Amino acid sequence: MQYHLNGFTPGDPDILPADPARARKTPELPQKVDVLIAGCGPAGLCLAAQLSRFPEIATLIVEPKAGPMEKGQADGISVRSMEMFQAFGFADKVKRESLWINETTFWTPDSADPSQIMRAGRVQDVADGISEMPHVLINQARVHDMFLDIMRHSPSRLEPNYQLRVMDVQVDADGQDHPVTVTLEHTAPDRAGETETVRANYVVGCDGARSNVRRAIGGTLHGDAAHQAWGVMDVLAVTDFPDIRMKSIIQSQAGNILVLPREGGYLLRLYVELDKLNEDERVADRGLDIEDIIAKAQAILSPFAFEVKEVVWWSIYEIGHRLTDRFDDVSAPETSTRTPRVFTAGDACHTHSPKAGQGMNVSMGDTFNLGWKLISVLTGRADPALLHSYSQERWGAAKALIDYDHAWSRAVSAPSDAGGDMPAVQRKFIEGGLFTAGLTVTYAPSRLIGTAQWQERAAGFELGARFHSAPVVRLADAKPMQLGHTVEAGRRWTLFAFAPKEDAPLRELCDFLADDPMSPLKVHRRPQEDIDTLIDLRAIYQQGFRDLEHTQMHPLLRPLKGRHGLCDYEKVFCASTLPGEDIFDLRKIDRDQGCLVVVRPDQHVAAILPLQAHQDLARFFAGIFLKV
Amino acid sequence: MQYHLNGFTPGDPDILPADPARARKTPELPQKVDVLIAGCGPAGLCLAAQLSRFPEIATLIVEPKAGPMEKGQADGISVRSMEMFQAFGFADKVKRESLWINETTFWTPDSADPSQIMRAGRVQDVADGISEMPHVLINQARVHDMFLDIMRHSPSRLEPNYQLRVMDVQVDADGQDHPVTVTLEHTAPDRAGETETVRANYVVGCDGARSNVRRAIGGTLHGDAAHQAWGVMDVLAVTDFPDIRMKSIIQSQAGNILVLPREGGYLLRLYVELDKLNEDERVADRGLDIEDIIAKAQAILSPFAFEVKEVVWWSIYEIGHRLTDRFDDVSAPETSTRTPRVFTAGDACHTHSPKAGQGMNVSMGDTFNLGWKLISVLTGRADPALLHSYSQERWGAAKALIDYDHAWSRAVSAPSDAGGDMPAVQRKFIEGGLFTAGLTVTYAPSRLIGTAQWQERAAGFELGARFHSAPVVRLADAKPMQLGHTVEAGRRWTLFAFAPKEDAPLRELCDFLADDPMSPLKVHRRPQEDIDTLIDLRAIYQQGFRDLEHTQMHPLLRPLKGRHGLCDYEKVFCASTLPGEDIFDLRKIDRDQGCLVVVRPDQHVAAILPLQAHQDLARFFAGIFLKV
Ligand SMILES: Cc1cc2nc3c(=O)[nH]c(=O)nc-3n(C[C@H](O)[C@H](O)[C@H](O)COP(=O)(O)OP(=O)(O)OC[C@H]3O[C@@H](n4cnc5c(N)ncnc54)[C@H](O)[C@@H]3O)c2cc1C
Ligand SMILES: Cc1cc2nc3c(=O)[nH]c(=O)nc-3n(C[C@H](O)[C@H](O)[C@H](O)COP(=O)(O)OP(=O)(O)OC[C@H]3O[C@@H](n4cnc5c(N)ncnc54)[C@H](O)[C@@H]3O)c2cc1C
Repeated sequence: MQYHLNGFTPGDPDILPADPARARKTPELPQKVDVLIAGCGPAGLCLAAQLSRFPEIATLIVEPKAGPMEKGQADGISVRSMEMFQAFGFADKVKRESLWINETTFWTPDSADPSQIMRAGRVQDVADGISEMPHVLINQARVHDMFLDIMRHSPSRLEPNYQLRVMDVQVDADGQDHPVTVTLEHTAPDRAGETETVRANYVVGCDGARSNVRRAIGGTLHGDAAHQAWGVMDVLAVTDFPDIRMKSIIQSQAGNILVLPREGGYLLRLYVELDKLNEDERVADRGLDIEDIIAKAQAILSPFAFEVKEVVWWSIYEIGHRLTDRFDDVSAPETSTRTPRVFTAGDACHTHSPKAGQGMNVSMGDTFNLGWKLISVLTGRADPALLHSYSQERWGAAKALIDYDHAWSRAVSAPSDAGGDMPAVQRKFIEGGLFTAGLTVTYAPSRLIGTAQWQERAAGFELGARFHSAPVVRLADAKPMQLGHTVEAGRRWTLFAFAPKEDAPLRELCDFLADDPMSPLKVHRRPQEDIDTLIDLRAIYQQGFRDLEHTQMHPLLRPLKGRHGLCDYEKVFCASTLPGEDIFDLRKIDRDQGCLVVVRPDQHVAAILPLQAHQDLARFFAGIFLKV
Repeated sequence: MQYHLNGFTPGDPDILPADPARARKTPELPQKVDVLIAGCGPAGLCLAAQLSRFPEIATLIVEPKAGPMEKGQADGISVRSMEMFQAFGFADKVKRESLWINETTFWTPDSADPSQIMRAGRVQDVADGISEMPHVLINQARVHDMFLDIMRHSPSRLEPNYQLRVMDVQVDADGQDHPVTVTLEHTAPDRAGETETVRANYVVGCDGARSNVRRAIGGTLHGDAAHQAWGVMDVLAVTDFPDIRMKSIIQSQAGNILVLPREGGYLLRLYVELDKLNEDERVADRGLDIEDIIAKAQAILSPFAFEVKEVVWWSIYEIGHRLTDRFDDVSAPETSTRTPRVFTAGDACHTHSPKAGQGMNVSMGDTFNLGWKLISVLTGRADPALLHSYSQERWGAAKALIDYDHAWSRAVSAPSDAGGDMPAVQRKFIEGGLFTAGLTVTYAPSRLIGTAQWQERAAGFELGARFHSAPVVRLADAKPMQLGHTVEAGRRWTLFAFAPKEDAPLRELCDFLADDPMSPLKVHRRPQEDIDTLIDLRAIYQQGFRDLEHTQMHPLLRPLKGRHGLCDYEKVFCASTLPGEDIFDLRKIDRDQGCLVVVRPDQHVAAILPLQAHQDLARFFAGIFLKV
């Protein structure tokens, strides 16, 4: 964590100095904003948290409910989302507070007495080496709280405006100045029905499955219902089921359950398969309630006892897998003539069953993709055409999720099979391990993702996928750390330059970046701006930290920053000398040639280039950033 | 972290539910309190944080200053203090925010040109395996903030009463009801000189080197002054000194400096040797100021540049090593006739140079020792005679520190020696590694520390020293974790039962503890109290977690707790199967016989016993706790 650059400031470094203009709050709604976000779910709050750190951007986030969520809904945090939380700075807090899923067990009818269940298999939940982060479970409300804290402690001191619902969104396709008109309705009992309008440059509908924003831009959810009712409950209970503190997938003759232990050591979540529904029947028609969920759970868990002591939250739903055609307001034919003004994210544009534990993760993934693009455009660094890429990149991710969820839901609901060395569902679970960890999201080559031509220079950093962190040692202070943790939520790109055995290529790259008129660090840098504001160069050496001197590094790797011109000592890293921890080995980096790995603000690998590909690098950034 | 035991409560689990009676604040001072703490330094706040979690204890903490500290004073957090922070729950936050000292370098006059300095040696700062925690540096004010947060979020919602100075303390030696009368003086400009009195059961003087509490109980500091002025400064500076982000000990012909990099990546602290003082001369007489410190630093660092951009804080002092004869109000002859009512802690009873970085650590260590004792007495669980042990145990720790500090100060100030394979100061530094890490504090056998008779059953857990944590895997949820992190700040003791290969001894111990009328878990347990309120049994098995079933554990290891009678699943652990991580190997535990390691609330190893030593165990606790 870096702070005090522009002078010592007392107190908690996570509470950033307030921007006087933006932090001032008025009781009235603003007439114009840069971004209006509809909805305080994970998608909306993840976006608001990113924008709030840029006080030059006026953000309004509205929510019909009266205040922050307290319980219920999703609870699964994939390792990928934990990596993202690290970039926001609250992964440690979540690690401490959450339940870690370390092991998943599989239960099937006992072969001796099929009316009873037995443990048929077990799998380490997160395979070794796929991420430095655990897979955890925590109340969705607490994730909201983490983002709300970021907002509250940001220079903007952003708070949601509760008790406001987006009713309609109108885009003036030719307008330039705040061309989106948003109609808001008050939901407070004393103001119910009252409406106001706000004009925005951009609107992001994070307003859930019944999104008004989606409706306003003509999006419809396509897909199917599985005609299967499921119950979910968060309870405090007493049971002798042996694996109650592990994730357990239970297939019994009486039906199926997913057991999820939860944060705090006592809470449990159970997903319980209830009735099959007829065509055109809605789950509400059945009149099922919590007693039905508990009774069914008890039947499935037999011979184990399951006594519920407190019901914290419950819900009954049917599985639907639905997706809109696009996540913005620009139809395919319009793509070349106008740029998007309205977006949807999260459940507003894709829904799926909760059983793969992806709802919250993919929703945050959407706005983690959108956030830096909006920031780049709104701070005048990138052309608005950049915003087309949001729908392009995230639609694919959502589609893959829905396909996976389809298959997975079928596997869980299928009667358990007898044959083979493990239950079929266990095999599916293992196959899907990287997917459910959130690690298979890979963006296709585009303006933002280079070609695979040089992939073999760093085979362990898959182009388009998230940057897979690995251990390093920081040269200046010998600190053992994760290289990926240098990437912070925001809009900054990182150039990880892996040094070859020989000195020259990295030195020449630094010379080019420092001095050449074509250098992206010159072309896109504003006067007075710190050298690493937009693009952050970091070098990683093969030597141990005792074999190099920080003072011998290229000046670009020891940049002077801030109003005092202080040296930033955190740009150079060395391979760890601990057994099995050398990043060059772990990520299969070409030791002879080295390479340059370009990482986006959302931690995805944008390009892999030879260190000598100066012009390619310049061209790559010219395709993203405006000239200053 | 465990929470929700007595029902789901929304929000941040670190914010504990307020106790309605205690959390209510009135503008007036209370007339009577259980504990009055003088001073909001590390000693006072560490104590207040512990007491605040027990709302049945009325605590008042007063401080003459107008509000919390913002900068200056100490900054070194030993690994031992980090272990203690873990018990409070804020180690992760400190880890994130602080500077980690990973490497210490040693500079001496260059043999070629002795007017210049050269790096003569380097040492990994924290030797492998001595603790799972790093050695860190952070502004003392931030440590205060962490404790203030604990207090604020505790059931008592305790806040300091600022602008109040303890002037006098009078003990009515025969009184039973709040026998200590404390005279407080207001320091707010509009109330200056106004006094009030408060009566207390106990008073703890954490009021620093000029302690009024110490004076009131007739304590005097004995010791010497080293007649050497030192300057200390926190600055933002530009330098080409190569090791500026490592701890560096520099001995040049121009004098000596200790360089400490600081949190946030830019801040620096330098301790600079200034003038020798004459006998009876005070440092203030020299009229030295920040310009002198900077000029001297520049001379010593030559040929390296050192340009100060911002002075955050500075101070000039002389080294004194001083200690009072006792840390409470009971003189040796009175020990058998009365128990202490007034204590001193931290700088109030011992001062030393800041160069060994111990001031804050040893002060917190004092009140971490005192806290659980006061809580045990004030909640009626232990006889007040327990309180004699505070001065007994901590005086020795302070004495050892002063002796060490003497030697270390001399080593740092000594002219650097030419001979040998490393500078003399480097050799001293390596020798003192465990000491400066805070790991050599070992309490002597007493009522609270058993005999060394069974030490070889667990050679890696040194009797009287702090419990040296090691990795384990929790059986119920397969979570890899540190065993020592189960010990939380408070007044609870832990029984770590290490299982032998054979089942019977641990089962018999559990039977004894569960059922025998002599069991300390019965004798000292109040009706309706959770089984682990006072004494917490945890078992550690040699098997991997997949080789055991939680349901097969003794019921005492699966206790039902709270108002719902929920099972606590966090009592049983297995050895890690990762190479080099087996706790039985790491801590040299007798695999054939197993053993019982009794750990105090302050994490010190109180006893090592055979699992069969039921009566010894009962006797041990009978010497500490009252019968219920
Ligand atoms: C009742 C319920 C139960 C769920 N249970 C589970 C579960 O058990 N497991 C699981 O994995 N997932 C579950 N989910 C799904 C999971 O919570 C979502 O996938 C995830 O929250 C999606 O995040 P989001 O931000 O896109 O939408 P949401 O979290 O749905 O947030 C949308 C927000 O927008 C607000 N809003 C609605 N309309 C408007 C409007 N017109 N204008 C402004 N704001 C509006 C809503 O009040 C809400 O706060 C559940 C969802 C719901 C609604
Ligand atoms: C000016 C100064 C500079 C220091 N610099 C360093 C350094 O550079 N490096 C280092 O390692 N250590 C340094 N120390 C020492 C280090 O800060 C202490 O060892 C450590 O803070 C001891 O903690 P404590 O709680 O015992 O006392 P302190 O931190 O001194 O706290 C005592 C508190 O009691 C208050 N107080 C004083 N009188 C009364 C009274 N009559 N009634 C109630 N409250 C009272 C004080 O205002 C203060 O807040 C410095 C100390 C001081 C005072």
